[in-house]
Amino acid sequence: MVSERIKKLAMNNSAIRAMFEEGRVMAEKYGRENVYDFSLGNPNYPAPEAVKQAMIDLLNEEDPVYLHGYMSNAGFESVRAAVAGSLNDRFGTAFTENNIIMVSGASPGLNIVLKTLLDPGDEVIVFAPYFVEYGNYTANYDGKLVVVQPTTADFQPSPEALEAAITPRTKVVIVNSPNNPTGVIYSEETIKNLAAVLEKKQAEYGTSIFLLSDEPYRELAYDGAVVPFITKYYRNTVVCYSWSKSLSLPGERIGYVVIPSEVDDFELVFSGAVISFRVLGYINAPSLQQLAVARCLNESTDVSAYDANRRLLYDGLTKCGFECVFPQGAFYMWGKSPIADDKAFSAAAKKYRLLLVPGSSFAGPGYVRIAYCVSSETIRNSMPSFRQLAEEFGLKGVE
Amino acid sequence: MVSERIKKLAMNNSAIRAMFEEGRVMAEKYGRENVYDFSLGNPNYPAPEAVKQAMIDLLNEEDPVYLHGYMSNAGFESVRAAVAGSLNDRFGTAFTENNIIMVSGASPGLNIVLKTLLDPGDEVIVFAPYFVEYGNYTANYDGKLVVVQPTTADFQPSPEALEAAITPRTKVVIVNSPNNPTGVIYSEETIKNLAAVLEKKQAEYGTSIFLLSDEPYRELAYDGAVVPFITKYYRNTVVCYSWSKSLSLPGERIGYVVIPSEVDDFELVFSGAVISFRVLGYINAPSLQQLAVARCLNESTDVSAYDANRRLLYDGLTKCGFECVFPQGAFYMWGKSPIADDKAFSAAAKKYRLLLVPGSSFAGPGYVRIAYCVSSETIRNSMPSFRQLAEEFGLKGVE
Repeated sequence: MVSERIKKLAMNNSAIRAMFEEGRVMAEKYGRENVYDFSLGNPNYPAPEAVKQAMIDLLNEEDPVYLHGYMSNAGFESVRAAVAGSLNDRFGTAFTENNIIMVSGASPGLNIVLKTLLDPGDEVIVFAPYFVEYGNYTANYDGKLVVVQPTTADFQPSPEALEAAITPRTKVVIVNSPNNPTGVIYSEETIKNLAAVLEKKQAEYGTSIFLLSDEPYRELAYDGAVVPFITKYYRNTVVCYSWSKSLSLPGERIGYVVIPSEVDDFELVFSGAVISFRVLGYINAPSLQQLAVARCLNESTDVSAYDANRRLLYDGLTKCGFECVFPQGAFYMWGKSPIADDKAFSAAAKKYRLLLVPGSSFAGPGYVRIAYCVSSETIRNSMPSFRQLAEEFGLKGVE
Repeated sequence: MVSERIKKLAMNNSAIRAMFEEGRVMAEKYGRENVYDFSLGNPNYPAPEAVKQAMIDLLNEEDPVYLHGYMSNAGFESVRAAVAGSLNDRFGTAFTENNIIMVSGASPGLNIVLKTLLDPGDEVIVFAPYFVEYGNYTANYDGKLVVVQPTTADFQPSPEALEAAITPRTKVVIVNSPNNPTGVIYSEETIKNLAAVLEKKQAEYGTSIFLLSDEPYRELAYDGAVVPFITKYYRNTVVCYSWSKSLSLPGERIGYVVIPSEVDDFELVFSGAVISFRVLGYINAPSLQQLAVARCLNESTDVSAYDANRRLLYDGLTKCGFECVFPQGAFYMWGKSPIADDKAFSAAAKKYRLLLVPGSSFAGPGYVRIAYCVSSETIRNSMPSFRQLAEEFGLKGVE
């Protein structure tokens, strides 16, 4: 009855779904406070008060026909201009409203860019470990996903491996920094090296290769780390941004796409992305959210809370004997599974009421992802469980 | 550079886009109040005060982590249960939250159902004139659009024509009542006849044919007209609803999909639709809007204002000598072009600062669509222009 594709997706879906269900059942059995759910990227810290005030002001002040009405599919011009101005102030770029499309989070941004660019069989390169939905988004438009294996020393994408993966059919390379699931920030050197490879291969094949930068974690950087703004390093860059994490608004579905004027075939790429947004049924990003974020462009979530969690969790886990990548950004810790089979390790963790996502779910077997966008209390209370888990696997902890 | 499909779409897009641009230029030249823009389905009447109050209350009362956070891809369970309950109260159905998916308007609803059901080459039947995006939505999933020609006497879909169009590859039939662009409400007799044809053909071919009911205008019915609730007439019905028009919230992108438990392969169709919503990048319908509409299920826009517009416009146009379908619902009037070439007629109308959409844009040549979701003043002030237009085409008006 349903399509062959959806049948397959429904089958693959069951693993993660089962985890959610299990979490629920465990919470009912042991009490929510006794289940340490590190599986979800749902920020536990509230949106800044300014968001609430902006929404209430808009509802009180604006004509509802304007506030709740249709606008251009690309979004309110005033909002797009404000976003462009904010980017220019921060990154020294020269965008205008004609470079910005307001979208319903980063994921529709990725979808409309892929729909705009991909002919069936065109290749999309991703660096493992990666957000699995990239594979589904690529499949939506009959693209072929090409996975570059990680450099496990530092989890920076390897320019050599990228070069080896590029073919004349390569249309898009997706990057994601700060990274989900590793917490790594791509260094300026990495970006420069990737850009050099792309320039070289574009010239060699006479093609255009788009660097698609998925940036929902841009503002979540620790220790004053700088996240390079990629449009400055490579001409054919498109940026997908979301306020889901930076303003703790994941349910509200609001973000933007930046298409710089210097990308190849700019007019067609920009109008194609707007048309794709419309024909995929999005029509426009929610109007109240658009106008609200435009008033909160200088606001940000409290990164210090995530930073404290990061240190607490990293210290705790290493003391137990676990080996983890110390995160530079985002709110995920990438921990090495003490056994090769990360699914078995995640399954064992459940005995101690710890919910960790197997790295295999990100094409990164041998690891687990631990989302620390939880309360610090959850982290503190989970430590005896992590210690038991470490002991089960014979890890040597320190007191 | 961009995909072949998008290149084509960008080219086809230019006609309607040119109209919008022309409207803008005209408004600048003659003043907005002197341009009679009947081209857009953007409600001119404000959302009920209760919507504003619900949003403000939610912002003041709810924990922002809950209010703005992720929930199940299908939407908040409490909201889905409330929607199910409201439908049951009104239509005597027996839905639960497990039959409801909260989506970002009717258009994503149509998209996720088509993505769930269509294998490449599967056929989707529509009745002309129809909302052109149905063609794009079908093409998104490599479906084949099959157009049934209209019965111009009453613009009710013809069961005989439907029967002739069905093949073993027919997967979906889209209906839209109250109809855009004709303003017609499908009668109970029509629905029963269509259902009988579908039952017969399902049995004959051993297939499942889904009736996909696009219902953004459900609440906009005049003279006490009853809009039959189609799930009661045909088992394999899926309903796509939006609050865009009924609560004047088109920019906010909020609606729902109903998948009754009795459809073939219910579990797979329901989970497939939720997965499709996720993998197309929607993730979930905007959270504030979900919770707000759940508090406004008994609210509705002021239909009497549209009704007054309807009579004003119909009387005015018929007095000018135009022939129009008297609308039973929605806020569109379907007028006969006095010449076969509706595009030329629409072009001529612009001379009198009248913006009408050619019927060809709805696969209904020889007609124009006149959207009367404008102020009554616009309609009143446009009458001298319509009279001049009628005179140009030699129509005989009455005083």
